[in-house]
Amino acid sequence: MLGPNRYGKSQVRVVKVTRTRGRHTLRDLTVDVMLEGDFAAAHTRGDNRGLPATDTMRNTIYVLANRHPIDTLESFGGALVEHFMGRPAVVGVTVRVREHPWERLGDHEHAFQRGHGGTRVATVSVGGVSAGVEDLLVLRTTGSGFEGFERDELTTLPETDDRILATVVTATWDYGRAPADWHAVRDRLLAAFADHYSPSVQFTLHRMGEAVLDAHPEIERIHLSLPNRHHLLIDLSRFGERNDNAVFEATDQPFGLIEGTVQRAPAAGA
Amino acid sequence: MLGPNRYGKSQVRVVKVTRTRGRHTLRDLTVDVMLEGDFAAAHTRGDNRGLPATDTMRNTIYVLANRHPIDTLESFGGALVEHFMGRPAVVGVTVRVREHPWERLGDHEHAFQRGHGGTRVATVSVGGVSAGVEDLLVLRTTGSGFEGFERDELTTLPETDDRILATVVTATWDYGRAPADWHAVRDRLLAAFADHYSPSVQFTLHRMGEAVLDAHPEIERIHLSLPNRHHLLIDLSRFGERNDNAVFEATDQPFGLIEGTVQRAPAAGA
Amino acid sequence: MLGPNRYGKSQVRVVKVTRTRGRHTLRDLTVDVMLEGDFAAAHTRGDNRGLPATDTMRNTIYVLANRHPIDTLESFGGALVEHFMGRPAVVGVTVRVREHPWERLGDHEHAFQRGHGGTRVATVSVGGVSAGVEDLLVLRTTGSGFEGFERDELTTLPETDDRILATVVTATWDYGRAPADWHAVRDRLLAAFADHYSPSVQFTLHRMGEAVLDAHPEIERIHLSLPNRHHLLIDLSRFGERNDNAVFEATDQPFGLIEGTVQRAPAAGA
Amino acid sequence: MLGPNRYGKSQVRVVKVTRTRGRHTLRDLTVDVMLEGDFAAAHTRGDNRGLPATDTMRNTIYVLANRHPIDTLESFGGALVEHFMGRPAVVGVTVRVREHPWERLGDHEHAFQRGHGGTRVATVSVGGVSAGVEDLLVLRTTGSGFEGFERDELTTLPETDDRILATVVTATWDYGRAPADWHAVRDRLLAAFADHYSPSVQFTLHRMGEAVLDAHPEIERIHLSLPNRHHLLIDLSRFGERNDNAVFEATDQPFGLIEGTVQRAPAAGA
Repeated sequence: MLGPNRYGKSQVRVVKVTRTRGRHTLRDLTVDVMLEGDFAAAHTRGDNRGLPATDTMRNTIYVLANRHPIDTLESFGGALVEHFMGRPAVVGVTVRVREHPWERLGDHEHAFQRGHGGTRVATVSVGGVSAGVEDLLVLRTTGSGFEGFERDELTTLPETDDRILATVVTATWDYGRAPADWHAVRDRLLAAFADHYSPSVQFTLHRMGEAVLDAHPEIERIHLSLPNRHHLLIDLSRFGERNDNAVFEATDQPFGLIEGTVQRAPAAGA
Repeated sequence: MLGPNRYGKSQVRVVKVTRTRGRHTLRDLTVDVMLEGDFAAAHTRGDNRGLPATDTMRNTIYVLANRHPIDTLESFGGALVEHFMGRPAVVGVTVRVREHPWERLGDHEHAFQRGHGGTRVATVSVGGVSAGVEDLLVLRTTGSGFEGFERDELTTLPETDDRILATVVTATWDYGRAPADWHAVRDRLLAAFADHYSPSVQFTLHRMGEAVLDAHPEIERIHLSLPNRHHLLIDLSRFGERNDNAVFEATDQPFGLIEGTVQRAPAAGA
Repeated sequence: MLGPNRYGKSQVRVVKVTRTRGRHTLRDLTVDVMLEGDFAAAHTRGDNRGLPATDTMRNTIYVLANRHPIDTLESFGGALVEHFMGRPAVVGVTVRVREHPWERLGDHEHAFQRGHGGTRVATVSVGGVSAGVEDLLVLRTTGSGFEGFERDELTTLPETDDRILATVVTATWDYGRAPADWHAVRDRLLAAFADHYSPSVQFTLHRMGEAVLDAHPEIERIHLSLPNRHHLLIDLSRFGERNDNAVFEATDQPFGLIEGTVQRAPAAGA
Repeated sequence: MLGPNRYGKSQVRVVKVTRTRGRHTLRDLTVDVMLEGDFAAAHTRGDNRGLPATDTMRNTIYVLANRHPIDTLESFGGALVEHFMGRPAVVGVTVRVREHPWERLGDHEHAFQRGHGGTRVATVSVGGVSAGVEDLLVLRTTGSGFEGFERDELTTLPETDDRILATVVTATWDYGRAPADWHAVRDRLLAAFADHYSPSVQFTLHRMGEAVLDAHPEIERIHLSLPNRHHLLIDLSRFGERNDNAVFEATDQPFGLIEGTVQRAPAAGA
């Protein structure tokens, strides 16, 4: 009666400092580990033999962070996968590593401030590797509209050819053939967000995905999730004033959410 | 090159008041709608014909909340699914309704305070209905241990037969044959959390799922996600004091995360 | 050049379990400690002599939680104040204790779920003791209006004699003469929130304070902070529908915020 | 019996776009308004005459955002103060404006990503103006220690002359004589955080304040709040490994909190 199951340790916060004279570097990571395997006895009989403790997973992340250069998130994630795959009962491992950005203060040896440009993500499992970015907040003050959409008796949204477009990009791309340069992909997403007139979030999503696939033949598929951070033009005509697309109310809730995958032909279903 | 895609409106906050003399009731809901369909033209050509605006989805939720009795989350969600399935380009709809609990102040006609017992959830799609609970925080001060687990060279966790067990239950169950009484299922989960010695979160997860399936033949399958909200016994021996399982540090991060499905035999893969 | 300063440890999460046979109890606390004293040398010369480490404050909270019965938050806070006042350089201590509510599952010996009714707070310093409640979310579906307010050329809010009133109560009351029963004060706040027609949040704030002072002669003064969790009546007339005060949009942001002190005459300025 | 009271509108989110050809700019603001005045009748008699609605405050923020160039936060805040001071019953107004940072994408006319460097704050009241920064997350991988602090029987923290120092700076400075250049002050704080060996957060706090006062004679006083975002060196000796100040656990909770004012002599008490 036990169906699919998995477990692990989430939100392990580990910081690795590399002390090169004149230029310290740091990797500020949050690591999640999930294991699949033959854990039926623990579930049904309370027999924990063969069941690694999640506390051990935490220790393992710390020890491997010490041993490993963490040159890339993918290689560090891969080392963790390999380690856990060596445990007797384990048949599957997924490691997700997120890196929180820091930016050097000028050319200081060892002082940093929180950076920007999104959270870098790598997910490594036995089946493959994917990379991604989260929390990449972008906005255009013009060059975006929404017209010609379906109208029914409950539609009140006016058409517009000039609105603010803002979103928090979450993107995930596979490693079809070889690793893609993360910064190059992230910068391509930023550039493609901004390089066209956007008739809809859907169009911009597809454009961003297409731009990445065009520039990175090593990527087969990219998934994007774009919440629409609505900026509502405020009606000032009630006060006898013109609002020349100048003053907007920023809202969090509710929000439109547009999700899609762009992939190389032949397109396959989900 | 466009792969799977969907979009909709998230986090629509709607409150419906029913004003019976002497006894108002309220349903405090957060509704998410996601549509699938033939939206390729919007993505690739900027042609929005046939594309419902997410703003219209919001209006629709408000209007249907007005028309519909909202006797159950499922029937309200079903009305929304039916409405959106009637749009030309739409081939799939998923509506998720969460209800935030309120508790009447004594026998007051119309005054309430925030309740407890978790957030009620219903997810309705063309393919079926599931129910669930979120944010159900539970704790046992004893009757829980963790022993006999796998040890390796990186294991430091001591074995214990007396620890605090705390978790925030997220559970989702399908409607195999007929709707199950939500409060009965929720109460069954609470009772099963507390009715046994817990040798692991895994065992308790399975026990909770089994208890629901035993009591509710109408349910075929239940999925549970149980983060381990660790309460660490504080070492006071450093100060010459005994800590008789009395004083604990509550931690949020990192946390163990145990997930599993319990289903009627024959067990099928995910 | 060093002006007023203080420091301490914040957000120490400590759980104390008392194991009476047949009936465990738990106190789930978050403790903040702030010290004032002669710490100028640390600030200006880097001389840390006499400066207690905040890590020691954490240890102290744990040890005193072990030694102390924690019969009330106030007595536990007082024990911490007394302890830290004994340190050489310290001239002032403020301890804030918040208790997160748990509710027993039926008559179970040792199983609980998250309770409701707000977070209990006590603040103890050398100068005195205050008690309070936070996170007490309350709502009335009717019996509230807002009319006759000042109108100017930028006012668009319609007058109403029937609206939803919702707020998250934060209240703090002093201990003028003797401790007041916390549950009695909290329940008095709840009752007074609901026992009158509310012409404004201001009136209800004053009414709630007055009710507490009337019932508790031991309290000299109470401060209330009431954010207005707006529930906006949705205009359905655009769709040819009547909305009989039935369907509302719940909003978080922006919100009105009403704060005030109710105290025994003679009223003194801040 | 009514004591000190005030009310207003909080968290008004307004974005102002200025459309210069080739170079749009935006100010992304969260505005809070609080009024003091003669509002006793509303509190005690339910008489709302003279009481501005908080909804009107929101409208006013929008309209003034349209009319005003928002060249500085201070001038915009001042315009709001002046407006509300003109209402009959009002005797005091405090306006707090926070600006969320955006950074232009390359030299794009109108596309931006979330910036960094902290949230800019200005608080304007009848009594004066202050400026500030929030959410300025900084970290040093070395050049920080903590030694020679007071030890008692509950002290376990080892002394160290090499630790990670991380904090989230909140600073507020007055405008003694003239406005100080915000970016210059913020950059001075960053530089002073990094330009010395830090024997304690207290010393660094004082150093940062002193550096600002030294460079900005127009500032009389600066207040700093520095939570200690602890990075705990992980003990790997249990696993036979050396941790050469390389691998740290980042923790949120509990945290040390150091607060202080640095001001020009003669130093006055709070």
